[in-house]
Amino acid sequence: MDPVSLPALSCVALCGGTHGNELSGVCLVREQQRKKEEETEHVTLVTVMSNPRAVQECRRYIEKDLNRCFTAAILSTPVSDRTPYEIVRAQELNALLGPKGSDGAMDLVCDLHNTTANMGLCLISNSDCDWICMHIYKHLQTNISSIPVRLLNLYTSPDESSNLASVGKHGLSIEIGPQPHGLVRADVLSTMKKGVQLMLEWIRLFNSGTVFEGGEVEVHTVVKCIDFPRDPETHDITAVIHPQLQDQDFCLLRQGDPLFLSFSGETEVYRGGAPLSSLCE
Amino acid sequence: MDPVSLPALSCVALCGGTHGNELSGVCLVREQQRKKEEETEHVTLVTVMSNPRAVQECRRYIEKDLNRCFTAAILSTPVSDRTPYEIVRAQELNALLGPKGSDGAMDLVCDLHNTTANMGLCLISNSDCDWICMHIYKHLQTNISSIPVRLLNLYTSPDESSNLASVGKHGLSIEIGPQPHGLVRADVLSTMKKGVQLMLEWIRLFNSGTVFEGGEVEVHTVVKCIDFPRDPETHDITAVIHPQLQDQDFCLLRQGDPLFLSFSGETEVYRGGAPLSSLCE
Repeated sequence: MDPVSLPALSCVALCGGTHGNELSGVCLVREQQRKKEEETEHVTLVTVMSNPRAVQECRRYIEKDLNRCFTAAILSTPVSDRTPYEIVRAQELNALLGPKGSDGAMDLVCDLHNTTANMGLCLISNSDCDWICMHIYKHLQTNISSIPVRLLNLYTSPDESSNLASVGKHGLSIEIGPQPHGLVRADVLSTMKKGVQLMLEWIRLFNSGTVFEGGEVEVHTVVKCIDFPRDPETHDITAVIHPQLQDQDFCLLRQGDPLFLSFSGETEVYRGGAPLSSLCE
Repeated sequence: MDPVSLPALSCVALCGGTHGNELSGVCLVREQQRKKEEETEHVTLVTVMSNPRAVQECRRYIEKDLNRCFTAAILSTPVSDRTPYEIVRAQELNALLGPKGSDGAMDLVCDLHNTTANMGLCLISNSDCDWICMHIYKHLQTNISSIPVRLLNLYTSPDESSNLASVGKHGLSIEIGPQPHGLVRADVLSTMKKGVQLMLEWIRLFNSGTVFEGGEVEVHTVVKCIDFPRDPETHDITAVIHPQLQDQDFCLLRQGDPLFLSFSGETEVYRGGAPLSSLCE
């Protein structure tokens, strides 16, 4: 295979607090901001607290999920006094880190998240075959052994991609769990720090002209979303993740495997046909 | 020791959603309310969704922590249009389940909570030497083996007790963790169900005239609260629970044991003198 040559990643944004109650990224960005903006060898690192009002209230968002506001349509919505805070903030962030799809955009936007799911460290990319994302993924996977490292590709077009990471020329979200929202666990924070350090290490190697070997990586994608069983009138959930499935994220789900346990004690099984890898949130 | 004779517990209240994002109790109360109020042999069970607005928003509280609003002083505060929602609601609940300290009060108020701490199943009582609470505790401890069962006594006077359980003639909070706030785990829900069933089983035995043997139980109490290290200006935390202490709730903390790990990597140790049993939230 012919070698692929790509431009350097001179400007990298590290974002936390896109969801205000996912605190590893909030802590990491605060710590980084104490050190001021960093211009280390070969790369300028800009740190951003994405949703400061939600961080202040320790909530996912104030009016609208910020990490669903970066589609081309929402970014070009005219703003009035009644525009939800997060749409205004998304447009500010797009001006700061983008504009999306332009030459002025950050070379890489890395957005830090937590999940209550037993997800390990999961890199989330929007675009198909992004060499940068796949090499960063390989570098993290090779160097982190404490928890599983995976890549989830959403395969969305730039215009349709709604997450903050999609504003950059390249974009990566780093999702780590399990961690309850609203608190910080030292083990999860330390893994996130290591992930970010390894990403920056790879970028420095890349920017200094290192040639990386090709190879194969395993990539996950979203095949299907299954909602909880709900009461048809109140829409309250009527069942929880079955204890045999709980915490078994990314394990293969086969026809007949337990999915949910209803509050009255009945098991609902998977009847989807082909085996499916599961992720419970 | 002479036998102690106590009146029957004819009316029992089971409360959930006192903190709106602690969902095991919310689910259990909803399930129970689907069955309507239950008058089984020897006991009338009343179920209460304590803070419906906070449950609706999946938040701990709207304006003020409801479970700190049941002191004699707050319950007798005059209400105006600007009174926080939870103070109004505390007075409603006091009228429904109390009034606190009166003959009309529920014989037992049991309030259901979750914690992100690795606390196991913990009964929390306000009063010193409450025979009812201690016998229920012993019954649960004898019959639950999946997680540790403990009793925490707060030793507060009825007037000063600020939690909902203090409204009844006898009061017990059941706290189960670890569970992230805002979600339900099947294992935690199932343990809470079992705890409530065992409590009701003991009450039926007690009400039907069973004589229970005396004995000894281990009781925990609050000796000291240690706050996180904080930035003196912003009051943001600057450290997290040390990974060696994380999830080691109720283990003995000795002089020199690690307490916190700062974001910059320094360990802060326990310098309190006497060994202390720890609970991390």
